[in-house]
Amino acid sequence: MATIFDMETVALDDQDSALLIIDQTQLPGRREILRLKDQKSIWDAIYLLKVRGAPAIGVAAAFGIYLAAKEIDEDTFDDFYKRFEEARDYLDSARPTAVNLSWALRRMDSVVRENREKTVPEIKSLLLREANEIKAEDIRVCCSIGENGLKLLKPGMGLLTHCNAGQLATSKYGTATAPMYLGQERGYGFHVFCDETRPLLQGARLTAFELQEAGIDTTLICDNMAPSVMKQGWVDAVFVGCDRVAANGDAANKIGTSYVALAAKHFHIPFYVCAPTSTIDMACKTGADIHIELRPAEEVTEMWYEKRMAPEGVKVYNPSFDVTDAEFITAIITEYGVAYPPYDVSLKEIFEQKAKAER
Amino acid sequence: MATIFDMETVALDDQDSALLIIDQTQLPGRREILRLKDQKSIWDAIYLLKVRGAPAIGVAAAFGIYLAAKEIDEDTFDDFYKRFEEARDYLDSARPTAVNLSWALRRMDSVVRENREKTVPEIKSLLLREANEIKAEDIRVCCSIGENGLKLLKPGMGLLTHCNAGQLATSKYGTATAPMYLGQERGYGFHVFCDETRPLLQGARLTAFELQEAGIDTTLICDNMAPSVMKQGWVDAVFVGCDRVAANGDAANKIGTSYVALAAKHFHIPFYVCAPTSTIDMACKTGADIHIELRPAEEVTEMWYEKRMAPEGVKVYNPSFDVTDAEFITAIITEYGVAYPPYDVSLKEIFEQKAKAER
Repeated sequence: MATIFDMETVALDDQDSALLIIDQTQLPGRREILRLKDQKSIWDAIYLLKVRGAPAIGVAAAFGIYLAAKEIDEDTFDDFYKRFEEARDYLDSARPTAVNLSWALRRMDSVVRENREKTVPEIKSLLLREANEIKAEDIRVCCSIGENGLKLLKPGMGLLTHCNAGQLATSKYGTATAPMYLGQERGYGFHVFCDETRPLLQGARLTAFELQEAGIDTTLICDNMAPSVMKQGWVDAVFVGCDRVAANGDAANKIGTSYVALAAKHFHIPFYVCAPTSTIDMACKTGADIHIELRPAEEVTEMWYEKRMAPEGVKVYNPSFDVTDAEFITAIITEYGVAYPPYDVSLKEIFEQKAKAER
Repeated sequence: MATIFDMETVALDDQDSALLIIDQTQLPGRREILRLKDQKSIWDAIYLLKVRGAPAIGVAAAFGIYLAAKEIDEDTFDDFYKRFEEARDYLDSARPTAVNLSWALRRMDSVVRENREKTVPEIKSLLLREANEIKAEDIRVCCSIGENGLKLLKPGMGLLTHCNAGQLATSKYGTATAPMYLGQERGYGFHVFCDETRPLLQGARLTAFELQEAGIDTTLICDNMAPSVMKQGWVDAVFVGCDRVAANGDAANKIGTSYVALAAKHFHIPFYVCAPTSTIDMACKTGADIHIELRPAEEVTEMWYEKRMAPEGVKVYNPSFDVTDAEFITAIITEYGVAYPPYDVSLKEIFEQKAKAER
């Protein structure tokens, strides 16, 4: 049977004529590879979370808009661009709040606009190159985070992660999981505990699935069991992803992350946030400036259940994220190195590294 | 529509001829009052958790063995006691590890043996009196815990609780919920947050249900959201029940309790353990001596779900309880008063109070 590691999370087929994704809404029960050609099915896949995770959505959108452009049968730039814009806006509407979706589409749009003197076939092949580059960059970033994280670890260690900042959220390796995968490739023999991550159970459905698939020793726990496994001495380090890091190091991530950080500090376990520099927002001073999305009550009271498991009409507070204060974060691992406290200094240095590398 | 507060959790009907319980396996979707007459249906109700919670099981067993005794159609003590013993052993087998089940049955058994000189009808009426007394004691204990807890609170406060140490686990009022119910009767207007309490969701299914039923302002959260509500300043005190308290104040309770204690300490929120003296085990020196039951993986991967939400074959660690270190417990609230640290001293004083009261 094919494993998810026989393919990347998001890919083009051999003829560059269809988008291949693994349908994440069917996991872990069924592993179905979708082959998407038309715009409607790509839009649906993004809208219905068949592909999810900020980097993976960006790559899917880049390939998606390339496939749309490829089908545009116009000879003049203006005619081509008019239809390109329609396709771009259509894809962009699939998940209006997903930052990477707009970001990838804007980047593809620039390629078109900056090459208006070229022929339409030339533009199409530049679009393919850009989409492949967006994906290659994603893999490079994950790989670098993995290498930087792995240096902090020793073979045989016990690790714990929350939610899914894994391969399934990126093109390959994931962020929080990247050190685990690289360690696995090199025989480190890690033992990984996955928080199930209520309410949507991304830890149980996705992280436990993909780590197990990679042959990593994986144990699933309910969120409220993290201190129990830490108390046993089974966890040597915690790795989590993040949605946004403020300039002072405060990090917003899936609800429950700050709880894990509290427990890690109590048990003197290092707590690492894996953050591509694209998620570090130096314009955001502290975590207090990060808006926390509140989500529907039904995610808590109904979703995944055979029957409603809470009384009708009960109030529910369902924040999607929480902010982990910088003081609980041992280090922030980026593709340009590892930042240690004080983060207001070290994160600036990370961006200086980045600027130097891009020069 | 009848509310669960129109009846107590466990009761005899008006003719003392049937056991009435609310079927907790149907909550919160359906509120079905079961009227149980024969021993098999009472055994099933205990075995299948239709009635649950240590005190409630004890009361159900006491009424159950009374109903069995009532039906014994023998005139001599020896003939009567032989059949009584059979019924007692049968009921006792419904949940072998439930301490209160054996305890209540032993107490009923003593009534029979200590009155062998009396007539069988006299013994039957002493058994009814004893069963009613076991229930009355349970209610008195919960009430006293409620009064002692309520003294620590002010109107309008926000409270948080974990799992179900509620009315549904006792004859009335519950333990951790007793201050909430007494406060409600007196117009305190508390706002209560209920942890859903994975894996079996007793907080969502039972606590949120019974508090809402009593008209208390109730908000359900996932376990991993407790620090988020605490950070908002919405929680002024945490109340939890317990399964066993050691002589040094370490308290075993439903998995996740120690996590809540960690968060409460971080946010400087008082953390109260409500403990009938029957759960304080002075022979148990510290929490390290408390055995933690491990439960089946399926509770995490399957129970309550429409489809399996974790990959096949994934390892699961599923401890039923955790131990909250005494240093995280602000006070232990018993029916004989409130014990503060150092608990090795204060818990002894509680038992001195108890001995004095029983003299």
